[in-house]
Amino acid sequence: MDLQTLTEQLRDFARRRDWGKFHSPKNIAMALAVEAAELMEPMQWLTEEQSRNPDETTRAHLADEMADVLLYLLQLADALEVDVLQAAFAKMERNETRFPPV
Amino acid sequence: MDLQTLTEQLRDFARRRDWGKFHSPKNIAMALAVEAAELMEPMQWLTEEQSRNPDETTRAHLADEMADVLLYLLQLADALEVDVLQAAFAKMERNETRFPPV
Amino acid sequence: MDLQTLTEQLRDFARRRDWGKFHSPKNIAMALAVEAAELMEPMQWLTEEQSRNPDETTRAHLADEMADVLLYLLQLADALEVDVLQAAFAKMERNETRFPPV
Amino acid sequence: MDLQTLTEQLRDFARRRDWGKFHSPKNIAMALAVEAAELMEPMQWLTEEQSRNPDETTRAHLADEMADVLLYLLQLADALEVDVLQAAFAKMERNETRFPPV
Repeated sequence: MDLQTLTEQLRDFARRRDWGKFHSPKNIAMALAVEAAELMEPMQWLTEEQSRNPDETTRAHLADEMADVLLYLLQLADALEVDVLQAAFAKMERNETRFPPV
Repeated sequence: MDLQTLTEQLRDFARRRDWGKFHSPKNIAMALAVEAAELMEPMQWLTEEQSRNPDETTRAHLADEMADVLLYLLQLADALEVDVLQAAFAKMERNETRFPPV
Repeated sequence: MDLQTLTEQLRDFARRRDWGKFHSPKNIAMALAVEAAELMEPMQWLTEEQSRNPDETTRAHLADEMADVLLYLLQLADALEVDVLQAAFAKMERNETRFPPV
Repeated sequence: MDLQTLTEQLRDFARRRDWGKFHSPKNIAMALAVEAAELMEPMQWLTEEQSRNPDETTRAHLADEMADVLLYLLQLADALEVDVLQAAFAKMERNETRFPPV
């Protein structure tokens, strides 16, 4: 159960529905931004403190929206032939320099 | 090089900067939505076709923004104790039923 | 029927519900971003051409989401004591210089 | 200085730059969502309380981003022939019923 397996499942899922024509990087990025907003929505009127301890229903809802973000992110990475995990490790290294620890 | 290792690096990175106080789920979700918009921004005036074949500079920029989305997603998952990879596989199963192949 | 009247209605609406405590600029900005995503969502899988000619149901849905964006924008402007109409005219002037006509 | 005048300035501005081809409702909605995120960004690590009292630089920055949101909202309304002010008053009426005052 890893990102590569999930990416292949997504590719297969879209192929069997003939959704390739919809999945331009532009469209996938829109869909990802919509899901990111849906992930933010249940917390918009909570205090920060409340958001640290969501009830079980909210937490399950948030987990579902996080899944959607990941699924579109992997589809975008696949469409653009980007290794997003490698890009994330590279970003971590740059951040280490950009934000020196106190 | 996997999500678990990356999550632990992120936790350590934030701890060494004493950023825990900023990282409420609410704030991380906002930051994630901002990064999702930054990922969309370079494609907003492209045609869908153009977005399928970005030049190398744009592709590198997009990879960098995708990395940021993944980093915040993992931090949010860590803060909420959600296994986002498992949630994504579970979502795939539900989608299989919700959207029957043609 | 103008922005000032609408702003006063919004202020009165929130006051009668005792929602002032929720309406920090940070929270209103989140709510506005969520509405902006909901405005984008019905067009995410349309072609650009299709988005130029939405059917009447979609157009009414979009009008409703545009209303939500405007309502939060005015509430944010009110909370921060910003004259958003004046800011928009000022921005137009700067854009005239930033993007010289061909 | 009203929304109608601003809308006509925007129409003229785009016409003189031949930007009509970029301004499909889909693209404008993306641009609006990007601006909404830029409006949220300066407040993402602030506490709610801090966001209620931004320093003058931040407030000017936020005013500028609010202007951008309004400009794209009016362009979208113009493209879709929606009277957004009327839609907002109509929404206020519905909200009065949806959320009865305490």
